[in-house]
Amino acid sequence: MQSYLTLLESYLSKIEERSETFIGYPAATDYDYSVLYPFLKYTLNNVGDPMIDSHVDLHTKNFEREALSFFAELFNAPKNNWWGYVTNGGSEGNLYALYLARELYPDAMVYYSEATHYSIQKNIHLLGMSSIVIRCKENGEMDYDDLKETIQMHRHRPVIMLANIGTTMTEAKDEVQAIKNILRSYAIKNYYIHCDAALAGFHLALMDDNSFDFRFGADSIAISGHKFIGSPIPCGVVLVKKSNKDRIGRSVSYIGTFDTTISGSRNAITPLFLWYAIAKFGKDGLIQRAKECVSVAEYAVDKLRQALVPAWKNPNALTVIFPSPAKEVCHKWQLASENGMSHLICMPGITTDQIDAFILDFKKPNGCEIDHDIQSIKCSLN
Amino acid sequence: MQSYLTLLESYLSKIEERSETFIGYPAATDYDYSVLYPFLKYTLNNVGDPMIDSHVDLHTKNFEREALSFFAELFNAPKNNWWGYVTNGGSEGNLYALYLARELYPDAMVYYSEATHYSIQKNIHLLGMSSIVIRCKENGEMDYDDLKETIQMHRHRPVIMLANIGTTMTEAKDEVQAIKNILRSYAIKNYYIHCDAALAGFHLALMDDNSFDFRFGADSIAISGHKFIGSPIPCGVVLVKKSNKDRIGRSVSYIGTFDTTISGSRNAITPLFLWYAIAKFGKDGLIQRAKECVSVAEYAVDKLRQALVPAWKNPNALTVIFPSPAKEVCHKWQLASENGMSHLICMPGITTDQIDAFILDFKKPNGCEIDHDIQSIKCSLN
Repeated sequence: MQSYLTLLESYLSKIEERSETFIGYPAATDYDYSVLYPFLKYTLNNVGDPMIDSHVDLHTKNFEREALSFFAELFNAPKNNWWGYVTNGGSEGNLYALYLARELYPDAMVYYSEATHYSIQKNIHLLGMSSIVIRCKENGEMDYDDLKETIQMHRHRPVIMLANIGTTMTEAKDEVQAIKNILRSYAIKNYYIHCDAALAGFHLALMDDNSFDFRFGADSIAISGHKFIGSPIPCGVVLVKKSNKDRIGRSVSYIGTFDTTISGSRNAITPLFLWYAIAKFGKDGLIQRAKECVSVAEYAVDKLRQALVPAWKNPNALTVIFPSPAKEVCHKWQLASENGMSHLICMPGITTDQIDAFILDFKKPNGCEIDHDIQSIKCSLN
Repeated sequence: MQSYLTLLESYLSKIEERSETFIGYPAATDYDYSVLYPFLKYTLNNVGDPMIDSHVDLHTKNFEREALSFFAELFNAPKNNWWGYVTNGGSEGNLYALYLARELYPDAMVYYSEATHYSIQKNIHLLGMSSIVIRCKENGEMDYDDLKETIQMHRHRPVIMLANIGTTMTEAKDEVQAIKNILRSYAIKNYYIHCDAALAGFHLALMDDNSFDFRFGADSIAISGHKFIGSPIPCGVVLVKKSNKDRIGRSVSYIGTFDTTISGSRNAITPLFLWYAIAKFGKDGLIQRAKECVSVAEYAVDKLRQALVPAWKNPNALTVIFPSPAKEVCHKWQLASENGMSHLICMPGITTDQIDAFILDFKKPNGCEIDHDIQSIKCSLN
């Protein structure tokens, strides 16, 4: 066998091994898309607007539209006034929404909490927007008093609100209603609310915990596809109001294209993954899946507390927070840590057996060992 | 069998059928990545900087770095001062490079030719930059006289040049040396040259037609991965000077890595595709592959001319341009058309048999027929 094939095989087996202790990052692991692999023989491309067919027939836009419709309905998007596309991940969805918001209110101030995903700051810088970071409460939710005071001092500017529906570290949810109350109290009419629902939007909406959706005031929502649904390739969905998107659609059609997406040439495989998951599970199956995840997360909190680890989680969240264990334990179980706290995330595929094994390692007096380091594998082409 | 599986099967067979007459867009069709499919069982993610390992072990950054090194060497990037990543396509590479350029020269004017890919205009708008469009010569190459006059009128501003290494319609190449001569003649010291080499950069460099690379003055180069190499998923590579990239670096403790990429969470499968193609073909194999494509393109020009179609192409180009045939022919063969001209692109996998069959359709007095329309396939989830 060619040496590069041997190399791939050995790398794959390392991946397999490391995936058994992959509980610190939000990614479903229970999917099987092998029935879709035959599509990988073709150079598919969902270039541009998913709602508009292009000259190229090698695409999956038909499937993409179906998947988008499912999410539009789930998030109560206005029936004849929504638009969206399957992105390369939550970051692109947030970038797209902030871009739209900037086009609507070029001199707006963006407000987001200190628990916001780092990509927002990156996007704001890219877009050249002004922003202010708002303090958080202990659970990771935005401190509305701080938001209120801060907005008061900038009443002359339109407001672009970034609401977290599941912060990265604690899966906290900023309350859209509380934000709207503040905007109303200062008679601010020019505002835009974007919900970064990458982490928690999908499972919360499935459990009717949807006080952040379009009906409740969101102007756009970005979710992730590789988290709760599961995908070997990062992806996401961004949904916006069509009337807002048309404002930048016009300016782009002036230059001869109807492509308002960030990416242009677009992955046509990930929309198939999303469509397939929706078709296979059905909405009821997905609801069941969300409930099971919450149960596993509650199990993890209980078991950790029984082991005298002061673990906690936000309501309906899949993220369980606790003081960071030993470095080796963090490494083995691939835990994200910040300020002495770590978390595990009970996405579909995480089992109570894994939780038990993790707690066993956690409580070992000298931490645990792992016997290899994936980073050291050389993939030299020479 | 479940109805959604039947639907997928029938869609796949339509895709298969339509791919037989897919000659109008730049995409290699001769690849086989099935040996890599087992990696699709895992939620891999090359999040953030490919040069810095993160806390997450489910990635292919080792392979990505190897692939990037191959391209850095091919494009003569400065040995200890290059950086790059595998993008979601040419557009992201261009966005990244323009972003870097803007950070270096916030008040610069961007110049690009009227034959430039539409994504550049989109990116410039997103980044809030000023720009001027330069006229083209008949072959699609930038009109340097127009560039010279235009730059003269804006000598007070730094220059960001977008050079096309293969324009979308005619695969024309803007000459970096000619651009540099103009900049020198006006003593402009603050400038940045980005080469959008998505279409032609790779095969031109393989054939030593590389007067656009870092050695000749490029500050950054973006290429496409799904064109000459071939990939079922859009991807690309962006290479920049490390010293420039370091200016926008930002540490992110959550993932334990610097992230200056546009995407954040990043596809880990496409870097594997690129690595695999490089490992399998080797540089010599890729050079051979490029030469064969040029031969097929020359064959197409000859045969079309024999059929009294005034076809032409630029030197070393794979794109063959001719007056648009009947609408049905354009539809069947999925040709891109603009101002009465169409093209076919002889990427790897396009055969002389396909060229012959196309010319036969072209010359039919009443055009040709196609018996189905992929757009009409319903993928309803209900």
